[in-house]
Amino acid sequence: MSMRKKDLLEIEDLDSIEINLIIDTALSFKEILSRNIKKVPTLRGKTVINLFYEPSTRTRTSFEIAGKILSADVINFSPSSSSLSKGESMLDTIKNLEAMKPDIMVVRHSTAGTPYFMSKRIKSGVINAGDGFHEHPTQALLDFFTIKEHKSNIENLKIVIVGDISHSRVARSNIHLLKKYNVDLTVLGPRTLLPAEIEKYNVKVETNLDRALEGADVVMALRLQLERQNEGLLPSLREYAMLYGLNNKKLRNVNDGCLIMHPGPLNRGIEIDPEVADGPFSVILDQVTNGLALRMALLYLFTGGVREREITA
Amino acid sequence: MSMRKKDLLEIEDLDSIEINLIIDTALSFKEILSRNIKKVPTLRGKTVINLFYEPSTRTRTSFEIAGKILSADVINFSPSSSSLSKGESMLDTIKNLEAMKPDIMVVRHSTAGTPYFMSKRIKSGVINAGDGFHEHPTQALLDFFTIKEHKSNIENLKIVIVGDISHSRVARSNIHLLKKYNVDLTVLGPRTLLPAEIEKYNVKVETNLDRALEGADVVMALRLQLERQNEGLLPSLREYAMLYGLNNKKLRNVNDGCLIMHPGPLNRGIEIDPEVADGPFSVILDQVTNGLALRMALLYLFTGGVREREITA
Amino acid sequence: MSMRKKDLLEIEDLDSIEINLIIDTALSFKEILSRNIKKVPTLRGKTVINLFYEPSTRTRTSFEIAGKILSADVINFSPSSSSLSKGESMLDTIKNLEAMKPDIMVVRHSTAGTPYFMSKRIKSGVINAGDGFHEHPTQALLDFFTIKEHKSNIENLKIVIVGDISHSRVARSNIHLLKKYNVDLTVLGPRTLLPAEIEKYNVKVETNLDRALEGADVVMALRLQLERQNEGLLPSLREYAMLYGLNNKKLRNVNDGCLIMHPGPLNRGIEIDPEVADGPFSVILDQVTNGLALRMALLYLFTGGVREREITA
Repeated sequence: MSMRKKDLLEIEDLDSIEINLIIDTALSFKEILSRNIKKVPTLRGKTVINLFYEPSTRTRTSFEIAGKILSADVINFSPSSSSLSKGESMLDTIKNLEAMKPDIMVVRHSTAGTPYFMSKRIKSGVINAGDGFHEHPTQALLDFFTIKEHKSNIENLKIVIVGDISHSRVARSNIHLLKKYNVDLTVLGPRTLLPAEIEKYNVKVETNLDRALEGADVVMALRLQLERQNEGLLPSLREYAMLYGLNNKKLRNVNDGCLIMHPGPLNRGIEIDPEVADGPFSVILDQVTNGLALRMALLYLFTGGVREREITA
Repeated sequence: MSMRKKDLLEIEDLDSIEINLIIDTALSFKEILSRNIKKVPTLRGKTVINLFYEPSTRTRTSFEIAGKILSADVINFSPSSSSLSKGESMLDTIKNLEAMKPDIMVVRHSTAGTPYFMSKRIKSGVINAGDGFHEHPTQALLDFFTIKEHKSNIENLKIVIVGDISHSRVARSNIHLLKKYNVDLTVLGPRTLLPAEIEKYNVKVETNLDRALEGADVVMALRLQLERQNEGLLPSLREYAMLYGLNNKKLRNVNDGCLIMHPGPLNRGIEIDPEVADGPFSVILDQVTNGLALRMALLYLFTGGVREREITA
Repeated sequence: MSMRKKDLLEIEDLDSIEINLIIDTALSFKEILSRNIKKVPTLRGKTVINLFYEPSTRTRTSFEIAGKILSADVINFSPSSSSLSKGESMLDTIKNLEAMKPDIMVVRHSTAGTPYFMSKRIKSGVINAGDGFHEHPTQALLDFFTIKEHKSNIENLKIVIVGDISHSRVARSNIHLLKKYNVDLTVLGPRTLLPAEIEKYNVKVETNLDRALEGADVVMALRLQLERQNEGLLPSLREYAMLYGLNNKKLRNVNDGCLIMHPGPLNRGIEIDPEVADGPFSVILDQVTNGLALRMALLYLFTGGVREREITA
């Protein structure tokens, strides 16, 4: 089983059959992570290039470990140790990397559309690991995987996304994904941090956190980029924390078993208080583990790799 | 065979049975290094994360090669390419890394106690690769391994440690380790570079190098951090070299076959002269090779890995 | 089959039998790159250290992928994350790395002669990946491999090298290599960028690009280091591009099937126009792919590795 398309560029691209295939594959790969010997030969002889133009902890490392567990060769390519300083164009860089016969390239870049640009120009698969303010599809997929793990029925769940919707590729990918399912999706944040044409996303927009959280089944807090304050988009971090930061008191009217999610890294005390981040309903670290399984699934599906059970070891 | 504890935090923690197990295991692994094909499947499917908050040559590379020879997947995680710049707390960083299911994390940090802090908070094993001025247990173990390789009987050996005892985690770990055995241990260095309560260490403290070296069986020179001069702790590097730097003349009264050791990197002409560092009694490069075998042993013992001979290849 | 020498330091060292062995081996390894599973056990249990004192994209990555496809363990060692900042001498660094039992060390350094210096002092093999203005032998070998792939007969080919001959280790290695064969070799570039004693190289020196390119079978454009302008060696980049930059018009009198080569990274619009770099006769990306196969061959030949067909899997 593999995807019919060679690239994972954005959630908008995917239909629900493809999303289900990805999640099901991630679920079956997750079991490997609890084995004593976490290694399968699935992607032996495949080369994965991690092309990260922006620094990253969890995403790059997650793809690296995912690839290695599947026996792929993983090459980390960080622009600072590269020809970038010699002024080479990105197109030349990726054409050169392609000539070294990778099976898949995972890319993060501050410019929206970079993965799309790459996908048109190289034969190997491209996975978008975050492009500017556009999308972060692997994050949305792992979030969805995490929700599905805990909630038997996605339909009619009340899901709330809180924070800087405007600058968040995580929010954008999650909105696109969740809108494909019949969920009750609400977003909120300071007016200055909502997209200008938010109504086009066809989601509920709340201005009051209490009202938004009432009856919620899933609450996703977004990371606040602290530089928004200097850009004049926020009066103060303290006010942001007071109005939008999650704490137990504000969460008192959510539904039983409401999931608390965050893509990380956390600004503790700003968008989320430690009592919530480390509390019983937080699935923040589950998201990380699921991210690993999900990326194993993506590397497998987008390289057309041979599945473990199809191999005569 | 594996350790009953999950972490190697400090030498003080270890009893002599554990130390002997580690050294014996290192000895048996060292043989692999002389093979034509230096690869065993011992840690296949295990993930080792090298978490180095301080730059390092030999230690990080040593762990990386050690892991790879044992077939582990090794992930290098350097803070500069990470979320640190995004202000994530270290606890969140290690919790996130833990969620990616490593079997062991090797950590170096400028703050004493970091490995201990981690060990209390994560389930995977932790190996201290140097924490502030506290300990550098793998260095002490490889030093001890090197001494035992050359000296059939440890008891009553006269061992001298020369240099900046006060700021040296290497010295501290070596003192703790050697005090567990019946050795004649002497330390010396400028008064300003001896710990305030040196008598608590229960070692001989010498002020005269000639007297200290007389009849020595092992001399360990410590690396002098050149910044000590700017901190006003040293009148001049030249004076330090004159009083404490090892050269052949000063070593004229050591015992036959006296071992010359140094943890590296060397300040040639300061704490040690080339004629000594490269001389017939120097085991400085043996220490490096033994360090590799020792770290193989530690990765094996602290992951509960399956031993080569226990595997049906 | 392996080389009788342990190191690849410079093209001048090699005779044509050795060059042919290298090219033939590269050709046989190139087939692996088109397999679905690009992995052979040839260098299993061998350790390759990539020791790059200068930043590099394609060369370091090329060696890393080459090693991994052959199942070697590859260690990237970049000086910035190393003891260099602690003032360790390069000799101590390489002696330390050697003590960790690598089979081969690939080195790039801004000082000419560094690989030679290393080769005299360490037992493991050394491959020169570029040393100052001296040589870049693996580039010349992959260039030659690429020419031989396209031209059945090397003899009497007219080969033209255009650019900053004086500061180019690529040019120097190519000249040494091509002079071993009976080719018609012409170099040209601004007078200020030709070596003072160019006649000693025993090549034709042209001053007029049109005349040089007439009847050419292979044209190699060199990368222009843009800093040459600030050094007063060039009146302007624009004039350089006008006089020496390759475009279709200037190439109108070359022979049919003339190969256009460039070692990368490209300064598009300076030494080469996009219409040429991306045109039908450009083999620039073939050079990259061939570089990977060539480096697989070198790692194999200089570690005395066991060939795939000699292995009973």
